[in-house]
Amino acid sequence: MQEQKRIGILTSGGDCAGLNAAIRGAVCRAVGSYNWKVLGIRQATMGLMNSPPDFIPLEIDKVDELLIMGGTFLGTTNTGDPFAFPMPDGTTRDRSAEIIAGYHQLGLDALIVIGGDGSMEIVRKIAQQGGINLVAIPKTIDNDVGSTERSIGFDTAVNIATESLDRLHFTAASHNRVMILEVMGRDAGHIAISAGIAGGAHIILIPEIAYNLESICNKIRERQESGKNYSLIIVSEAVKAENGETIKNINRLGQTRYGGIGQYLADQICACSRAETRVTVLGHIQRGGTPSPLDRLTGSVFGVAAIDLIAEGKYDCMVSWQNRQVVSVPIPEAIGKYSTVDPEGMLVKTARGLGICLGD
Amino acid sequence: MQEQKRIGILTSGGDCAGLNAAIRGAVCRAVGSYNWKVLGIRQATMGLMNSPPDFIPLEIDKVDELLIMGGTFLGTTNTGDPFAFPMPDGTTRDRSAEIIAGYHQLGLDALIVIGGDGSMEIVRKIAQQGGINLVAIPKTIDNDVGSTERSIGFDTAVNIATESLDRLHFTAASHNRVMILEVMGRDAGHIAISAGIAGGAHIILIPEIAYNLESICNKIRERQESGKNYSLIIVSEAVKAENGETIKNINRLGQTRYGGIGQYLADQICACSRAETRVTVLGHIQRGGTPSPLDRLTGSVFGVAAIDLIAEGKYDCMVSWQNRQVVSVPIPEAIGKYSTVDPEGMLVKTARGLGICLGD
Amino acid sequence: MQEQKRIGILTSGGDCAGLNAAIRGAVCRAVGSYNWKVLGIRQATMGLMNSPPDFIPLEIDKVDELLIMGGTFLGTTNTGDPFAFPMPDGTTRDRSAEIIAGYHQLGLDALIVIGGDGSMEIVRKIAQQGGINLVAIPKTIDNDVGSTERSIGFDTAVNIATESLDRLHFTAASHNRVMILEVMGRDAGHIAISAGIAGGAHIILIPEIAYNLESICNKIRERQESGKNYSLIIVSEAVKAENGETIKNINRLGQTRYGGIGQYLADQICACSRAETRVTVLGHIQRGGTPSPLDRLTGSVFGVAAIDLIAEGKYDCMVSWQNRQVVSVPIPEAIGKYSTVDPEGMLVKTARGLGICLGD
Amino acid sequence: MQEQKRIGILTSGGDCAGLNAAIRGAVCRAVGSYNWKVLGIRQATMGLMNSPPDFIPLEIDKVDELLIMGGTFLGTTNTGDPFAFPMPDGTTRDRSAEIIAGYHQLGLDALIVIGGDGSMEIVRKIAQQGGINLVAIPKTIDNDVGSTERSIGFDTAVNIATESLDRLHFTAASHNRVMILEVMGRDAGHIAISAGIAGGAHIILIPEIAYNLESICNKIRERQESGKNYSLIIVSEAVKAENGETIKNINRLGQTRYGGIGQYLADQICACSRAETRVTVLGHIQRGGTPSPLDRLTGSVFGVAAIDLIAEGKYDCMVSWQNRQVVSVPIPEAIGKYSTVDPEGMLVKTARGLGICLGD
Repeated sequence: MQEQKRIGILTSGGDCAGLNAAIRGAVCRAVGSYNWKVLGIRQATMGLMNSPPDFIPLEIDKVDELLIMGGTFLGTTNTGDPFAFPMPDGTTRDRSAEIIAGYHQLGLDALIVIGGDGSMEIVRKIAQQGGINLVAIPKTIDNDVGSTERSIGFDTAVNIATESLDRLHFTAASHNRVMILEVMGRDAGHIAISAGIAGGAHIILIPEIAYNLESICNKIRERQESGKNYSLIIVSEAVKAENGETIKNINRLGQTRYGGIGQYLADQICACSRAETRVTVLGHIQRGGTPSPLDRLTGSVFGVAAIDLIAEGKYDCMVSWQNRQVVSVPIPEAIGKYSTVDPEGMLVKTARGLGICLGD
Repeated sequence: MQEQKRIGILTSGGDCAGLNAAIRGAVCRAVGSYNWKVLGIRQATMGLMNSPPDFIPLEIDKVDELLIMGGTFLGTTNTGDPFAFPMPDGTTRDRSAEIIAGYHQLGLDALIVIGGDGSMEIVRKIAQQGGINLVAIPKTIDNDVGSTERSIGFDTAVNIATESLDRLHFTAASHNRVMILEVMGRDAGHIAISAGIAGGAHIILIPEIAYNLESICNKIRERQESGKNYSLIIVSEAVKAENGETIKNINRLGQTRYGGIGQYLADQICACSRAETRVTVLGHIQRGGTPSPLDRLTGSVFGVAAIDLIAEGKYDCMVSWQNRQVVSVPIPEAIGKYSTVDPEGMLVKTARGLGICLGD
Repeated sequence: MQEQKRIGILTSGGDCAGLNAAIRGAVCRAVGSYNWKVLGIRQATMGLMNSPPDFIPLEIDKVDELLIMGGTFLGTTNTGDPFAFPMPDGTTRDRSAEIIAGYHQLGLDALIVIGGDGSMEIVRKIAQQGGINLVAIPKTIDNDVGSTERSIGFDTAVNIATESLDRLHFTAASHNRVMILEVMGRDAGHIAISAGIAGGAHIILIPEIAYNLESICNKIRERQESGKNYSLIIVSEAVKAENGETIKNINRLGQTRYGGIGQYLADQICACSRAETRVTVLGHIQRGGTPSPLDRLTGSVFGVAAIDLIAEGKYDCMVSWQNRQVVSVPIPEAIGKYSTVDPEGMLVKTARGLGICLGD
Repeated sequence: MQEQKRIGILTSGGDCAGLNAAIRGAVCRAVGSYNWKVLGIRQATMGLMNSPPDFIPLEIDKVDELLIMGGTFLGTTNTGDPFAFPMPDGTTRDRSAEIIAGYHQLGLDALIVIGGDGSMEIVRKIAQQGGINLVAIPKTIDNDVGSTERSIGFDTAVNIATESLDRLHFTAASHNRVMILEVMGRDAGHIAISAGIAGGAHIILIPEIAYNLESICNKIRERQESGKNYSLIIVSEAVKAENGETIKNINRLGQTRYGGIGQYLADQICACSRAETRVTVLGHIQRGGTPSPLDRLTGSVFGVAAIDLIAEGKYDCMVSWQNRQVVSVPIPEAIGKYSTVDPEGMLVKTARGLGICLGD
């Protein structure tokens, strides 16, 4: 008979929809099948830094009603690199040792981290230093974690972005406007291209394809000339122009002060196409909300599978969805394969096939 | 037997959800019951200004599938006051006579305008000058048209704003943040207070109640002290501070450049409460989208009723929903009663009763 | 200074969306504004029958997250008339005295019952007998409580029924079918007529208007002849034919065994129109789910107002929404005015104006 | 330069969400990129049987607004096997030759059929006989087409079933009931198990795992004993008992008359657990409605890819989604691998890991 293990679980990085389903899955499996203890660590690794560690003992009853809840009831943070943790006095400090101490103080046998590639990399480094048995579950609305077909949070984000395009479509057509929807995606344009195709955008701008303002304006004019006096644009927050210009260096020049790329593009497009142009920055709305069924399913699958990896003693691994099966992938392999939109891949081909302008 | 009338119908001002239901209702009633002709005028009164007038003959088949469509398939505009219409050369011109001419050129017996109080006032002035038999249908996401319990578009806007609060709620709680949602409402805070109550906001700021920054920060601190490290704020775009400051005069000073009140408040709140604060500007998303069932019902009721008013020869009237009945109200009376949130009324009392801070 | 009161609150009858908002509203107001105690009575009046009474002390923290939750977290029942309560041995017993005893045993100053007209009538009878200070909050998906423009649960039910019609619309058109949606409404057809208009039904059958099979089939044939090979029908569960036939007496004859009116109609229509006909019984789905913003708002308004009535010492009253204000109505007056769909009223006129067949 | 091809496209079998996205994708690609002609064949193969064939010429403008529309605007049928087509006189006739004739009469170079495995098999047989260049696009809400990770319509069906469970959850808990949701899935339980996990069902019954009534009742009793007085069950329409009993042979015995398995189970469960039990048959609602973003994306990808296969001259193939890429699979291979839920696979393991009873 297997010994009774003590498992820590935490969520790290930006919140998204489906995190609670993963926590619930892990607790149901660990407590219900193996009779283990599960400790929910609060506020990402900060819960382990604290002395005493900040955690909640997790029972099945406590997590059972979490499926429809967005975000993470354990709390999370996307600030506070443990190796350079910002202190109240303005300095930074390496607090990785405190995390390791917290893990051992709680008598944990293993730690599940639900996070994106950044979180996985940092926590893995700490785990390697401190003898922490680590299992990772991928979550990212950007869908940029490699080695898995699905990460928690992406489907819900695409749903919300698509729904927003549906709404803007009607108001764009009613007013003969160009409507720009700015979505998240720091280095990968998955949300923009998936929602853009699903929501009928006419122009999709992603970080993987540098845009040319003239191409965008040509597309808008071409539509105007064929009697379509409106256009829908979806743009990832971090696109760059063919001339190397990004919203960051535009702002750095101090000549303009734009909150984001959307407003910058709007001004440019308005100038070149004379179309009334409006911007909507989707912002935090795309992270939250009741998870889509697919994100609840993905979270549940990953939560259960993470516990099974621990039962098998397979550590330093990430659970991964591949070809309708859940498998495990070494974390270094997973974070080594950053997943961006393939400019020659299926989605780009589909977008071009539909006549969508990709800015190039 | 009644003569066969020719009815023009147009939508004016900002688009919203439920306009198509009203057009459909009018066409079904006029064509199906009375065998009249209905002409859909395109782009608000601009369709009548043009020579020849820009219109679409409307048959039942053409409008039958419009119930789930947001916006207005006739197009609209919220620029272009006919009495001071902006011309390409930069001047303005009084084009009201052209509208009157267009009405008569089309041989119309009556004109239905679906619009807010601004549109009703302008079109009424033209109608009075030019012998136009006018019937009005109230639409406004701001819910600020007087003399009617319901206007087209408000319910959908409240639904979208509430759904957004639901989403922000999860991400605020996950990250211990103050989340600010900026919604529309130039002079009336109906969207903010209705969605704020329905979506569980902790602070609701409306134009009808001047806010005091200290009250807001006190509420946030009070929540923090009781262990609630997050707060949700919903704010109408046009609120003003007790000291008379509005986002317009803040911008006019040139000292800061804020897109809207949300970002301005965020900076102030961040300074006073030290809470991580984020802003979402809901923007055009709240106008569009598939109409709520209630907006489809309201549109349908008003569309049918507008035709019945014409059949009775009752002009210069607005259809109105009062106490589960549709009645008619003289347009001057309707636009004379601008409907703001009553600071002593049911909604404010409810908000206070729930412990919501209203900024005062 | 006002004494500290003890308030009991219970939900009675079929569950619906928005009940939790009302409980939350009452608790926030009573605890937050007046510093009273609120006891949540479980399982309707059964919680008071039990000895000791079955209740939960309600604090603001406990109810704060309930806004998005459907149903009632206090539990409810729509069986078990206290005056003829079914006992395990098959007999019935008058248990009203036990309810009265429970109320006094808990030391309550007042009782809030959230229920429909049936529940209000029964609980009022008990209250009159036993010196219970009663305040009622109207809830009913059927919208049949008189003397108020809104009851909790109706808006959500209409939303769900309309959404279902939207879905059936596409599949009906794709397959050239007649689709029948059977919805709730034992004596009032409010759900059917509101959702029917909003969802574009071609035929709406309500209990208030006896239907004639021939009229229905004529409408379907007329559509077929004009090239529309599909029709959408929405029917209240308790409609009756012009010949007095209802699904109850059809079943009683034992000649056919129909679960509900929908299937019976389908067979009749299939026979007369030769159209492929399918039935969907919406069932319990229309009760549950996250409440619509309007039901959350209505629940919140009523919950706060019920406490204010108690503070004023106004008992034997129901809170009521009238003309954008919340008022109080004597319970006998409210339950005396059963609210059905007015066959000469706005909704029926609108339906006829749209060319919808009402079965007559 | 490539010759201008003429492509026929049709939808066959039960309708679902995302069909219009596939048609739109094919038209945009064929017309926009290759300048080919596309003919939309109406009512599945019946449009080719007719003389003259029943079709609509498809232009980009005609399909552009179809993304949010459920069903198929070309119409479809799931009756009428062309090899034994039911004639008005009650006989059946082999009408495959007429379909072949119709194809050639229209001068088509290739035919795209959007259908499930049954439709693919039948149309392929005709194509083989008649020199039809066939390309297939998989659609099925049951997700039972082999050789592809995704088929059109499944995601939307799962969303609707999950949302229904969410709603039933609240009403079950409010009333201490067992709620049974019967969903589609004639031979494969994908909808039931996916929605069951996502929607928090306590018992999931699928055709791939024979159920034992005792196991089900034990689960319900176990929950009751631990204080959970309600249970949610989701059941595929075609499950069978361990004793070999299915709803079909139950009905055949003539002893009971059940519309479906749901009601039969309810009676059994009510008898064994004494819990109040209610059934909801989801029915046609799960087919229709606005497609989920994922189904719109899948349809768009497949529509474009089908045209590209034709451009390459690859016929007798089905487009398939595998590992984030679109590939082609020989139709015989695709229909040879009927995809059911793997009783040892990821989803079953996840369900068991969550403590869900699978009836065995």
